Amino acid sequence: MTQVYNFSSGPAVLPREVMLAAQAEFTDWHGSGMSVMEMSHRGREFTQIITEAEADLRKLLGVPSGYKILFMQGGAHFQFAMLPLNLTQPDDTIDFVDTGHWSRIAIKEARRYAKVHLAAVGDGSGIPAEADWQRSKGAAYLHYCSNETIGGVEFPFIPQSDVPLVCDMSSNILSRPLDVSRFGLIYGGAQKNIGPSGLTLVIVRDDLLGHARSETPTMLDYQIHAAADSLYNTPPTYAIYIAGLVFKWLLDRGGLVAMEQQNIEKASMLYETLDASGFYSCPVERPYRSRMNVPFRLADERLDDAFLEGAKARGLLQLKGHRSVGGMRASIYNAMPVEGVKALCDYLRDFVRTHG
Amino acid sequence: MTQVYNFSSGPAVLPREVMLAAQAEFTDWHGSGMSVMEMSHRGREFTQIITEAEADLRKLLGVPSGYKILFMQGGAHFQFAMLPLNLTQPDDTIDFVDTGHWSRIAIKEARRYAKVHLAAVGDGSGIPAEADWQRSKGAAYLHYCSNETIGGVEFPFIPQSDVPLVCDMSSNILSRPLDVSRFGLIYGGAQKNIGPSGLTLVIVRDDLLGHARSETPTMLDYQIHAAADSLYNTPPTYAIYIAGLVFKWLLDRGGLVAMEQQNIEKASMLYETLDASGFYSCPVERPYRSRMNVPFRLADERLDDAFLEGAKARGLLQLKGHRSVGGMRASIYNAMPVEGVKALCDYLRDFVRTHG
Repeated sequence: MTQVYNFSSGPAVLPREVMLAAQAEFTDWHGSGMSVMEMSHRGREFTQIITEAEADLRKLLGVPSGYKILFMQGGAHFQFAMLPLNLTQPDDTIDFVDTGHWSRIAIKEARRYAKVHLAAVGDGSGIPAEADWQRSKGAAYLHYCSNETIGGVEFPFIPQSDVPLVCDMSSNILSRPLDVSRFGLIYGGAQKNIGPSGLTLVIVRDDLLGHARSETPTMLDYQIHAAADSLYNTPPTYAIYIAGLVFKWLLDRGGLVAMEQQNIEKASMLYETLDASGFYSCPVERPYRSRMNVPFRLADERLDDAFLEGAKARGLLQLKGHRSVGGMRASIYNAMPVEGVKALCDYLRDFVRTHG
Repeated sequence: MTQVYNFSSGPAVLPREVMLAAQAEFTDWHGSGMSVMEMSHRGREFTQIITEAEADLRKLLGVPSGYKILFMQGGAHFQFAMLPLNLTQPDDTIDFVDTGHWSRIAIKEARRYAKVHLAAVGDGSGIPAEADWQRSKGAAYLHYCSNETIGGVEFPFIPQSDVPLVCDMSSNILSRPLDVSRFGLIYGGAQKNIGPSGLTLVIVRDDLLGHARSETPTMLDYQIHAAADSLYNTPPTYAIYIAGLVFKWLLDRGGLVAMEQQNIEKASMLYETLDASGFYSCPVERPYRSRMNVPFRLADERLDDAFLEGAKARGLLQLKGHRSVGGMRASIYNAMPVEGVKALCDYLRDFVRTHG
């Protein structure tokens, strides 16, 4: 085994302890003689797995009663269509805050089903002051993306809203405590901070269920999944099992308060190293810098290839920025150990000494 | 490890050799230091995995040029809506052959988007003779389910069709050689004969792409997935990896010709044991009996619990029939070894001796 630190933006590194536990029981879960992958989703064993996963997630996030947790498929992309099909009629208006790439993909799909109003548009360096947002009257909901995985812009606050607040939390859910009661619906693909790809988490307030348009495909109706406790059809069972192990791992480590402390420590260390270098630059203003995804550029992009090669030689993997923006990106989700960020900071300094 | 034989209808048993290989490289794929679960879906490593999986599947099934293979999410349920949204306009008629539970779920969803004509309706014991089917003129396509997982009714032939033939092969794909060129579109959830749940396979003829209705959600447009080589959004990477290992396992064992021979051997042994008992009964006529899912009843249903308990004590698991029909069901997919069926037949005979 090569010792590596994997900075992928997703699918991303999972906690080492979780992976070793899953490996040990890969072919024989709790003496059943079966892999979790081979179990009926309606059997006693898997019922225990999904029930515990939901209970642990409720505990971690303090999900109040009156909210359903859904384990779904299709990623955030699937939600981009489900949201307007379930929460609007064609003449309704949706308010959006646009802070980057993922905001805009959600907006593009929503425009196909309802009217879209841009309450605020960021320029990539941060988030317009909430006081300046132009809200429409009687919007069906307000949608925002709490952490732009590509741009590295993260909300340091939860917006005020009289209408249901809907949030794409794919890349920062479980990275800090959250007041779920402020939201109408929260969603996120699992493959960043929760578990393997192919699983999508939805937390939805009960009053938002049961309003799907008549033409909505059955699989895109939240109420169908809620009424069946996420077992309307065969769910991605193994991904739910791994997510459940991750929830237990988080609880064992003190939950989201402890996790936030560690995420602040890791992100501060990395941004301070970048800022102190005089060689690397970050596109995002300090209050809005993401604790999860840290995009940065070298002073001379002709050194990019040398940087990536040198990183790989030290076992620092998947640091290349998203193809749409170039440069570098270090994703440092919950599962990235502090040692990994230290190793990256050492390399950042060494690279400046040799190439700066 | 308890030695068990797992007769689950899905998620179902996977080949022992595949599971051991996946376990060995669970945290470190080919010296990368990463689990397949932790890799970017756009990185070099996963590109190799998905490319090989597709090439191996093409080889196994002899998929001709002019067909796309798509790795998707959402299961057959997702396809039930995608098919009419992509292949019809609201005034079009779809011809269906109804041979059981899964045929009817597909029909129910299709009725929401187009006109449905029932060309033939089975009574659960078999398939109406093809000469008696009442086909409509100018149907958009003909849909059938090649193997009814719950009813145990399997098509021993491929229907003739002048219009595109569309088939739900969830529970018997890869169990025998297949002439893909006879079909417009083939689909199936992976969790029976392919791999873990959360992955859906679609094989679609090129001319059927690009016709989605304007209101179709982006994620339900086949052309979107085809144009992006199944990477429009983050796919269920780990499930694709396991499916790829299963494809290699099948190729190593002589492909689908060899697999069909073994499936005939297993199914014949089991049906002969049931028929010879004078105690168990099968609801399906011989020519239409499934090689994959074998439903049967005891002479006295008050013995059902004792039967299941005795089976479990011998490590013969998940034999309970579907909740909608009761009785028993043994699913004997490719990954069920001949020894598992022998052990089941021994138990069937012993149970008659002690309880018959």
